[in-house]
Amino acid sequence: MGGATTSSFVAPPSSLRNSSPDDCGRSHQHHHHLQPPSAVNSSARSTTATTTTTATTTTTTTTTAMASLVHALDCVFTPSPGACEEVLACVQRVLGEAGFRGSAQALGPGPGACGSLSGDGETCACLCVRESGLLTIDLHRDEAVSPSPDELFSALEVALRELRTEVQHLRRLPPVHRGGPVERFWALSDGRVVEYDFEEETLTTRSAYQSVRVLRSPQYGSTLVLNGDVNLAESDAAYTQCIMGDGQETFTGRDVLILGGGDGAILHSLLSNYKPRSITMLEIDPVVMEACRTHLRSVCGDVLDSLSGPTHQIVVGDCVPALRRYADSGTEFDFIINDLTAIPISTTHHHDSSWEFLWLILELSLKVLRPDGKYLTQGNGYNMRAALRVYEQHLGQLQPPVGFTRRTANVPSYLELWVFYTIWKKTP
Amino acid sequence: MGGATTSSFVAPPSSLRNSSPDDCGRSHQHHHHLQPPSAVNSSARSTTATTTTTATTTTTTTTTAMASLVHALDCVFTPSPGACEEVLACVQRVLGEAGFRGSAQALGPGPGACGSLSGDGETCACLCVRESGLLTIDLHRDEAVSPSPDELFSALEVALRELRTEVQHLRRLPPVHRGGPVERFWALSDGRVVEYDFEEETLTTRSAYQSVRVLRSPQYGSTLVLNGDVNLAESDAAYTQCIMGDGQETFTGRDVLILGGGDGAILHSLLSNYKPRSITMLEIDPVVMEACRTHLRSVCGDVLDSLSGPTHQIVVGDCVPALRRYADSGTEFDFIINDLTAIPISTTHHHDSSWEFLWLILELSLKVLRPDGKYLTQGNGYNMRAALRVYEQHLGQLQPPVGFTRRTANVPSYLELWVFYTIWKKTP
Repeated sequence: MGGATTSSFVAPPSSLRNSSPDDCGRSHQHHHHLQPPSAVNSSARSTTATTTTTATTTTTTTTTAMASLVHALDCVFTPSPGACEEVLACVQRVLGEAGFRGSAQALGPGPGACGSLSGDGETCACLCVRESGLLTIDLHRDEAVSPSPDELFSALEVALRELRTEVQHLRRLPPVHRGGPVERFWALSDGRVVEYDFEEETLTTRSAYQSVRVLRSPQYGSTLVLNGDVNLAESDAAYTQCIMGDGQETFTGRDVLILGGGDGAILHSLLSNYKPRSITMLEIDPVVMEACRTHLRSVCGDVLDSLSGPTHQIVVGDCVPALRRYADSGTEFDFIINDLTAIPISTTHHHDSSWEFLWLILELSLKVLRPDGKYLTQGNGYNMRAALRVYEQHLGQLQPPVGFTRRTANVPSYLELWVFYTIWKKTP
Repeated sequence: MGGATTSSFVAPPSSLRNSSPDDCGRSHQHHHHLQPPSAVNSSARSTTATTTTTATTTTTTTTTAMASLVHALDCVFTPSPGACEEVLACVQRVLGEAGFRGSAQALGPGPGACGSLSGDGETCACLCVRESGLLTIDLHRDEAVSPSPDELFSALEVALRELRTEVQHLRRLPPVHRGGPVERFWALSDGRVVEYDFEEETLTTRSAYQSVRVLRSPQYGSTLVLNGDVNLAESDAAYTQCIMGDGQETFTGRDVLILGGGDGAILHSLLSNYKPRSITMLEIDPVVMEACRTHLRSVCGDVLDSLSGPTHQIVVGDCVPALRRYADSGTEFDFIINDLTAIPISTTHHHDSSWEFLWLILELSLKVLRPDGKYLTQGNGYNMRAALRVYEQHLGQLQPPVGFTRRTANVPSYLELWVFYTIWKKTP
């Protein structure tokens, strides 16, 4: 960062102050929040999710001016009497010397404190010192008018290391853009934060079941986001490959049931690579299918253009009553591919409806699975070890007994490894 | 997030206030900053990089108490006279009603303002309102003692949408842990921020050339980090596969030169999968090799245990004079695998030493490449389009002319797609 920095934080040269936002956004370490021309819709004060949240008329310049860059410094120190006060005085002195004005206030009954100080170029330094031994400094600046804080942070680091208080570590965080036109920060399954490279919100709508969005990533292509979860992108053949058994299964001549699968990827792969005897896909949400038919065509091909073909049909509806009807009528399948919800994150599953739903789907599926059939499903993020363990323990306790294998895929748009399962009935 | 939230932000029940950090850290959406028992070394006030930055004696409880969770809310509003003041008054009113104390101050000569307000449970709300139309609120809290801000944020969202000022979008960011024991936030090639799942800093040292670290990820295994860049993890066979031509080349019976490759992955793959006539590896940094020999053994096998074998040798030294000696003596190779620096990020390459270095390596390599030989190299992140274009334009202008192909790999630990090249001399 900071290729166009000044030699002093306190007094940036006028050339920098006067530079246009476009000048400052040229470095390729900075994000380019280009406003795409094809944003669907704009309804600024809407409180419903049926309108897009991106504004159509924003230009690059306006966007850059609107966004703010936040640089952060963390300092962990050993708690001791007077440590908080010493750290706070040090930070206030260094910020004061750099021209920041303002003071801190008590954070609670103890010696902790917080404060926001304002500096040149409308820069704001927010500091928070905790008695437990943590100082955080967040420096909010407008890239267009205020200088890089590199030198200020260096001065702070030097000053903090000279204190009597023991500094355990000092760490600068990568700068973060705030207020850009497209949502870019997402949480992974284990709560970690990642910034996506989404440049455009192509679709934002709400179905009877969920919020349905398509965002455009330069790397991953059009990306389906359901209820805030990145679901599948055009880059994600690895997901489809892995949920279908990672090339270990042949579906030719078999009866295949897909639960969910509204993006059309599994159906498209089955029809392109195999000759199944029959494929039935049970998808509840026509809005998802329409979104993918329109925006993720490289994923679904033309399989979502109609609800049936010579050997396949798409049933728009709830899979639970359908599975019950199959069980009642004795209809059976060689493969059931469960592309519904991932394994719930909660591990206290006694009264968790998503675990109950998962077990119900599994129970009904095993009822309509042929004795030599296979049940293929996604699990969850590799790091959701406790939830995956709950799932595997449940599998180990099923009667009649089942066997299972587990595999991991590196799905490009997921930014974390993802676990999949193949489950079958053990022969007595 | 917030599975254990209270029904009111203002007055958390005493049971929550008194709960131990361990209780609050149990949700599997939270990070567990477990302090590994095997941290190498601890020298808290050290200013050199030769000692580890993790503390060995910190327990889980202390760690949780030390860390802070930051919840952020961004509000982009349409700039207009009085908008800033209206937004600020609204935020201060809602925060005041929730028991926050403190006030904001001017951010500069305009109506922009910043402030830090303190609330119950040592919670700190930092706000920054800019005339250009951006409000950011960062709520810093100690998970162990202060409640989730979900209700406060909802109240703020409702209040902001009721203003005369037009709110373009409101966006909550995923909560971020600050001050944990292991560095987790990294910038990708295009500046985006990602949080890794590193749980342990296994090695931190500094060689004559660079900082050398090994961090432990549950997903990716031991991960080599050079000068702050994630270089190669145990999960990253895809990198080695792709830089070696993605299975399209056979090295059996050929003379192979590796430039860099200190992690040993390429050498190990060549010796395991092919029978090259000769392999020469030119690696400048013995500290990198020793780090990988010790901590990334699944990557290098035993190939770094000695500097030579029946058909290979590792030359510890600078590759530039070695390449010049090969050119002078007429030594030639069938394959040159450049596993040195990635393509520089800067696109103003007239006086950029890293571009100069890249062109020098390429020029010298082409001199010692047999007429039907191939030069294999990494490029950079897929999103570094301008830098990749500079590289490809340079290739297009070389005399004698070269041809090239380009491919992309999804290297697990990189969290972004990575571009690789194969380059060859065009026959006249």
